[in-house]
Amino acid sequence: MPGLTKRLLLGRPVRSDRLGHTLLPKWLALPIFASDALSSVAYATQEILRVLAVGGLALLYLTPWVALAVVVLLAVVVVSYQQVVHAYPDGGGSYEVATRNLGPVAGLVAAGALMVDYTLTVAVSVASGIDNVISAAPSLNPYRVPIAMVTVLVLASVNLRGVKESGKAFALPTYAFIIGIVGVVGVGALRFMTGHPPVAESANFAIAPHSGGLAGLALVFVALRAFSSGCTALTGIEAVSNGVPAFRRPASRNASITLGLIGLIAIVMFGGITLLAIGARVHYADNTCDLVGFAGNCAATPQRTVIAQLAAAVFGAGSIPFYFIQAATALILVLAANTAFNGFPQLGALLAQRRYLPRQLHTRGDRLAFSNGILALALAAAGLLLAYKASVDALIHLYVLGVFTAFTLSQLGMVRHWQRTLTNERDPLARRRTRRSQTINAVGGALTAVVLVIVLITKFAEGAYLVVIAVPVFVLLMSAIRRHYDRVGQELQPQRTDMILPARVHALVLVGRLHRPAVRALTYARATRPDTITAITVNIDDEDTRRLQQDWSQWQISVPLTLIDSPYREITRPVLHHIRDLRTAAPRDIVAVYIPEYVVGRWWEQLLHNQSALRLKLRLLFEPGVMVISVPWQLASADIRSERLGRAGREQAARSPLRRGVVLEADRHPADV
Amino acid sequence: MPGLTKRLLLGRPVRSDRLGHTLLPKWLALPIFASDALSSVAYATQEILRVLAVGGLALLYLTPWVALAVVVLLAVVVVSYQQVVHAYPDGGGSYEVATRNLGPVAGLVAAGALMVDYTLTVAVSVASGIDNVISAAPSLNPYRVPIAMVTVLVLASVNLRGVKESGKAFALPTYAFIIGIVGVVGVGALRFMTGHPPVAESANFAIAPHSGGLAGLALVFVALRAFSSGCTALTGIEAVSNGVPAFRRPASRNASITLGLIGLIAIVMFGGITLLAIGARVHYADNTCDLVGFAGNCAATPQRTVIAQLAAAVFGAGSIPFYFIQAATALILVLAANTAFNGFPQLGALLAQRRYLPRQLHTRGDRLAFSNGILALALAAAGLLLAYKASVDALIHLYVLGVFTAFTLSQLGMVRHWQRTLTNERDPLARRRTRRSQTINAVGGALTAVVLVIVLITKFAEGAYLVVIAVPVFVLLMSAIRRHYDRVGQELQPQRTDMILPARVHALVLVGRLHRPAVRALTYARATRPDTITAITVNIDDEDTRRLQQDWSQWQISVPLTLIDSPYREITRPVLHHIRDLRTAAPRDIVAVYIPEYVVGRWWEQLLHNQSALRLKLRLLFEPGVMVISVPWQLASADIRSERLGRAGREQAARSPLRRGVVLEADRHPADV
Repeated sequence: MPGLTKRLLLGRPVRSDRLGHTLLPKWLALPIFASDALSSVAYATQEILRVLAVGGLALLYLTPWVALAVVVLLAVVVVSYQQVVHAYPDGGGSYEVATRNLGPVAGLVAAGALMVDYTLTVAVSVASGIDNVISAAPSLNPYRVPIAMVTVLVLASVNLRGVKESGKAFALPTYAFIIGIVGVVGVGALRFMTGHPPVAESANFAIAPHSGGLAGLALVFVALRAFSSGCTALTGIEAVSNGVPAFRRPASRNASITLGLIGLIAIVMFGGITLLAIGARVHYADNTCDLVGFAGNCAATPQRTVIAQLAAAVFGAGSIPFYFIQAATALILVLAANTAFNGFPQLGALLAQRRYLPRQLHTRGDRLAFSNGILALALAAAGLLLAYKASVDALIHLYVLGVFTAFTLSQLGMVRHWQRTLTNERDPLARRRTRRSQTINAVGGALTAVVLVIVLITKFAEGAYLVVIAVPVFVLLMSAIRRHYDRVGQELQPQRTDMILPARVHALVLVGRLHRPAVRALTYARATRPDTITAITVNIDDEDTRRLQQDWSQWQISVPLTLIDSPYREITRPVLHHIRDLRTAAPRDIVAVYIPEYVVGRWWEQLLHNQSALRLKLRLLFEPGVMVISVPWQLASADIRSERLGRAGREQAARSPLRRGVVLEADRHPADV
Repeated sequence: MPGLTKRLLLGRPVRSDRLGHTLLPKWLALPIFASDALSSVAYATQEILRVLAVGGLALLYLTPWVALAVVVLLAVVVVSYQQVVHAYPDGGGSYEVATRNLGPVAGLVAAGALMVDYTLTVAVSVASGIDNVISAAPSLNPYRVPIAMVTVLVLASVNLRGVKESGKAFALPTYAFIIGIVGVVGVGALRFMTGHPPVAESANFAIAPHSGGLAGLALVFVALRAFSSGCTALTGIEAVSNGVPAFRRPASRNASITLGLIGLIAIVMFGGITLLAIGARVHYADNTCDLVGFAGNCAATPQRTVIAQLAAAVFGAGSIPFYFIQAATALILVLAANTAFNGFPQLGALLAQRRYLPRQLHTRGDRLAFSNGILALALAAAGLLLAYKASVDALIHLYVLGVFTAFTLSQLGMVRHWQRTLTNERDPLARRRTRRSQTINAVGGALTAVVLVIVLITKFAEGAYLVVIAVPVFVLLMSAIRRHYDRVGQELQPQRTDMILPARVHALVLVGRLHRPAVRALTYARATRPDTITAITVNIDDEDTRRLQQDWSQWQISVPLTLIDSPYREITRPVLHHIRDLRTAAPRDIVAVYIPEYVVGRWWEQLLHNQSALRLKLRLLFEPGVMVISVPWQLASADIRSERLGRAGREQAARSPLRRGVVLEADRHPADV
């Protein structure tokens, strides 16, 4: 990326020693880590209603029971994860816990599940956010996919700027969303009490049932599938445990409190929305065309989201609170995607550090963010949104499987963890506390394992099978990468014999014609005083070779010139054969190949010059006992580029104090002191 | 391209010293150079009829007069070019003639016009060939564009195999086409004489006139436009004069005879087809829907070509001779494109040799063909065919302008050429011969200049304006390239001061951690006995740096280790600053930067290792007084690639005698002895 564009998008580079200063206070951590968990309120209720609609209006009586099951599960998982946060203040979440307690394979499975999960968080949240925008502005419906792409792009660039600034940008919308939803639920409840109950616009629609009169196993299956869809409300709880090191000290305590708060708010909001939806008789069909009484073209006009219908019913469609709630909902959903942009690159960096992923993922960018991880996530999510046309219905089926895999592995790992703690613990009070934690995690693990099986069965054919394929593929890939790094590491272990100096150095200077780069290569080669020195030229064109020989004697070059024949007009192979002959004659010697190059400043100038030198250089690297020496000659135009780079350096040096000032100013926030 | 695929498509490589053996005897030269000129018979008549159809049937009486003008012009141009072929036995055609006699700018204009012309020859011929296939097999109509792409691909690969083999492959179809057309015209004439005149399927169609009752200037304009379209019959005459060096000795004489023969055959065929089309009352409309009486959906069903209508009228649609003629016509049209695949790369190589085009165009490939020129032409032609949906009507408007620009410049140049010859010639007989040649070229030049103006006026708005833009752009581009090469050539002129040896060599060995590549770089650097040697490491991560320092003392490395600080986690800039400080302290010394690299054998392994060394290397090339030394360490997997390349080399060596045998066998043709 050219310098200026990069700076405009990302801001100025940040010094490594500023890393500690970007830790989060609770009031900033809550919006960052809560957005995912809270935003699922925007679609969890809707997904339950949608699944139950296969039976027409007949099965809607199940809604409160399904929602209750989700709430109970949510509470259990939050309490379970509070144990995790306390036990692992270094963070690492499910991957860390599974690896330490259940072994590396379990850890990799958890990591693979989390990576899938993060990607889907971005895709589902962005898609649902756009649904809520379209509920307020239906004319945007045809631009669903382009809007999704732009959103992902913006998220990626915000995150490339670094974690702290994104935290601040996201605080306001999260709190606005909480206020908005609590407002809808509160005012809605008030209207019930005062005898003016809100009525949803879909209250009088009937739904054409897909399968009438469900009973027995089929009924249980539909109820369980509704429950699976409702479990999307649990996504995002994991994020806090992954991000403990980003919290202010004491990190565990602050993270645990934040997690508890998030759980509480999520339960209140999800419960409230669901009860209000039942009361206002929101009807939401799997397929818009199943709605009996729907106005407009059901193939082109989308249903309004449940949130939009409730806001309209309580405050009136087109009122200021309605637009406020839609805006806050859309924003928090987009910001939920941001949780993944925090978690995914950190997990990637951890895996890269342990050599399970390419080490580029462990490189912090100019702004201290793990740039490559952010880019990888953005690409994957954009790909999913394109493939599934930014449809929440389609994406949601892939979603919860990864989440519950990670949950289950994490909780089972915790049970093991506490068991190990017990063997070393003698203090009865501490033992009792540990026992309690173990019980909580055992219950949590058992519950999430059951839910995992339910999700697998009820969602398998609708898309979850893709996750069942993707996770093992990730695990195998990561194992292969680790094996590669291990093998290379072993191969590169130095040995005493490596220190033995080679006997002699033979310098070969490759010349085509006698221009300044060639002359410079000859003088530089002579300056290194090798044991032997020869200039070699490959005879491709007899006339050129004759001219070279004439120049050679005219300029009285003292280095002998050797001709190499090349009947097939190649350069690389004849040179290679010549070097091999030299090496065979004296295997303990090394060959130094000097290649004159002239460098140009503009990319198009590169096209006008043959690339044979480059190809030869690359090939020579595969030859043992050879070193390849580029002797560059800078053409006038090369100064352009050199100066541009030099100027950038000077500017950066001049800017340093200013930058430090800016960062300090950002730090001067009361909560930061 | 991987080795095997390349060999299958292109055949085995050919030694440079076989170049002389690929010269062409007349019987092989005729089909190669005739296909373009003769194949235009397939569309020239049709284009005249199409233009005259704007007046309905009212203007068709002009057809024989327009055709007569084309025939006269054709004869004049052929005789003119015979003078060129004699005067310039080295070939080079219009570009050569214009450059030598009218100066470099005129030469470049001619070259630009020719390049446009060659590209359009490929596009128009392929499109018309497909029209003739569709006339015999209408169900292929929807696949027009894909068929065109495949045809261009096949042509390119045949030509990448080398000129001789293509000559043989093309002899049969050319002669078949001549026999087929002469057969239609002959049998048609016989049927007129015996009182059973052939009647075209379109004989009873009326044509809805676009502009009724044309008179005065408008009539003249339409007649001239019909003439412009008919002038496509002249395309391809140029090819012989460009290709003189490819003929057997005496090249000029053989080329002249071949050119005369081609002209004669073209006149007979064009005249015959036009007379027969008038006699059989072929009606051809610009737009199929203007045909009154046309059966079928005029928007989807194409008109049959004039050739197809005549073959059907004379021999009966669906008869064996009908299919024979359609096949031969389609084939020769595709082969006409091959003329361009002969001429374009040769012109490109000539221009590259004179530094007007990138020198890659002057590089002969494995099979002695100018591979890059062939690829460039294939890409350009495929682009045109895509853009114009392989429609002859659309492409033809761009066609003749380039051709006549080259014609005119060539003939004007010849007038100058003979003038110069006259000043040195005293022998009256020779002077008379020269005067005669000059007169011929003057008449030719005047005529083609008039036609050029006619074409420009009558075709400008319909597409010729694109050529008017493209040719100057080419000319400017070629001048810019030449200026670049000249400037670089001047800059690279060696000077005595270049020979002064630098005072001292400072070796810097860049290390990240102490693995075998680093150890090898250290020992190699020490083996070159520099004046000073230091190892430098950039401190990105404190822990890594500490480990490196520990290893350093543990392995008792005698080279001192210098730490360079990098607060922004960069490698390139701090190293650059360090080198600049060294250079400032001792400007007459040079710095040798040793970079340890480990090379891997598989492309995906490359992804798993950081590319920072590569980026640093590229940047160091822009630094004066620095040489960059790559010390490679071959990992085990690198052997895979090294062995693959080694094996290819051994196989090639083993195959050499066999290859020579094959070439000799191909040479053992009677006409070759």
